[in-house]
Amino acid sequence: MSREAAFIDSLRALAHHPAARGLADDAAVLEVGDEAIVLTHDMLVEGVHFLPGADWADVAWKLVATNLSDLAAKGAEPLGVLLGFMLGEGRERFAEGLAEVLEHYGVPLLGGDTVHGGPPRSFGLTALGRATHRPVPARSGAQAGDLLWLTGEVGAAMAGFEALRDGTAADSIAYRRPMARLAEGAALAPLVTAMMDVSDGLLIDAWRLAEASHVSLTIDSQAVPIAGPEPRRLDALRWGDDYELLFTLPAGLVPPVPATSVGAVEPRGFVPLFIDGEPMANREGLGWEH
Amino acid sequence: MSREAAFIDSLRALAHHPAARGLADDAAVLEVGDEAIVLTHDMLVEGVHFLPGADWADVAWKLVATNLSDLAAKGAEPLGVLLGFMLGEGRERFAEGLAEVLEHYGVPLLGGDTVHGGPPRSFGLTALGRATHRPVPARSGAQAGDLLWLTGEVGAAMAGFEALRDGTAADSIAYRRPMARLAEGAALAPLVTAMMDVSDGLLIDAWRLAEASHVSLTIDSQAVPIAGPEPRRLDALRWGDDYELLFTLPAGLVPPVPATSVGAVEPRGFVPLFIDGEPMANREGLGWEH
Repeated sequence: MSREAAFIDSLRALAHHPAARGLADDAAVLEVGDEAIVLTHDMLVEGVHFLPGADWADVAWKLVATNLSDLAAKGAEPLGVLLGFMLGEGRERFAEGLAEVLEHYGVPLLGGDTVHGGPPRSFGLTALGRATHRPVPARSGAQAGDLLWLTGEVGAAMAGFEALRDGTAADSIAYRRPMARLAEGAALAPLVTAMMDVSDGLLIDAWRLAEASHVSLTIDSQAVPIAGPEPRRLDALRWGDDYELLFTLPAGLVPPVPATSVGAVEPRGFVPLFIDGEPMANREGLGWEH
Repeated sequence: MSREAAFIDSLRALAHHPAARGLADDAAVLEVGDEAIVLTHDMLVEGVHFLPGADWADVAWKLVATNLSDLAAKGAEPLGVLLGFMLGEGRERFAEGLAEVLEHYGVPLLGGDTVHGGPPRSFGLTALGRATHRPVPARSGAQAGDLLWLTGEVGAAMAGFEALRDGTAADSIAYRRPMARLAEGAALAPLVTAMMDVSDGLLIDAWRLAEASHVSLTIDSQAVPIAGPEPRRLDALRWGDDYELLFTLPAGLVPPVPATSVGAVEPRGFVPLFIDGEPMANREGLGWEH
């Protein structure tokens, strides 16, 4: 176990509240009165999570959308966000992008903090939502016999990232302004046995879902809709930032939103993930580890 | 208006949810089901909010305690925290301090994020609580005729900071490990007309309370309990980090917790704050501006 993993485990050990899934999952769930509150917090760091020279409006959009995506995976309706903002250049553009994304999702900025510091600058966002269905979906509920489904396609963010990096004219909006599948998550919440958002790559996130559910997943790589050309298929399956929803449904159930069946759930085998019948010995190279 | 103030105002304009006091106040209040949820988010930045070489356990303590202090000022009972942690040295000590402060207050770590980045490193914390009394106290409710009260004393954190900075043997714990007045806040919430925590200095925070309440406050500087020697009295009134509660009560009401009457509320005069009868023309020099 790396020192980082040990630290994160020690933090997880602190997440002792019985109602909290804590750091072991995308978002925390807390019963308050007659509601289940869903909470998520992400940080973005300059030079780590966004390219130098990025449009600050895009940084603001992504900061909000990625947290709302965590709420989407819980079928939660967003109630508001709190922002931690490190002051510096680009604040007007940041405020513009923030206004755009909050307006798009109809989510209020509830509060936050502004601080001096950096470079590199870092930003934090907390999103708060209310579960629309209980039990709240988790990545831990997949059952052998379920099918594995994916909303949308993967690879568009990869293509967008490469367009920005290489300065080509290709469309980069999927990378710069990801969409949180809030409506899809709420529609799916009453039906799914497990659900998560694909933030780090389809394969690595499928591995995590399988581990959390104590099952094995088999993925048919040709079945996965990809945004890019065929030679980039495996790259698209390993790239993150698309924020689609990955979920499992009992066989025979048809999802109420556009989605593609990309695999199946089996009893736990000797590895958590099989791709086109090949066992994945470990999760190295499957996606973004952090 | 500075560029920073303009940015913060533009963020405030985004805080359009009617239930949210947003960035205009310490903590946001959100009605969810039959509960009022109180939310606060603060960031700490290396070299800005804590001394280089600080014990990481103290950094963790302060990060949590300062956010819980914002809940205390709302009379809220804490439900949990989310942590944004920038990986690096001292993580074991950080985890130890985090465990200590969460254990002390009986508050769970619900989730969060770990990221790479820095130096300088930055950390974010979101605290979530449940209001124990409604209406939830705000800094905006002081009425002419009320008296102004303060729990505890000010200046202890200043003395602790100076001991650390100068490497003396004096006790620095008040600076390193501030206490959040949660029990006092909950006991006071049903009685106060206005309440806030003193994070940036008694005088600057009193100015803010007066502005939010559209009143003038008169402070008797000699009445304020200070932790340091008499020649440092005015410094102690301007220093922050003590996290005592500043509140107003109708005349004749006696607070149910140890506190000292340090002044009175008057109809709004030509300035918001009078110290020993002297009008303060502006808030420069009254405390920590950020």
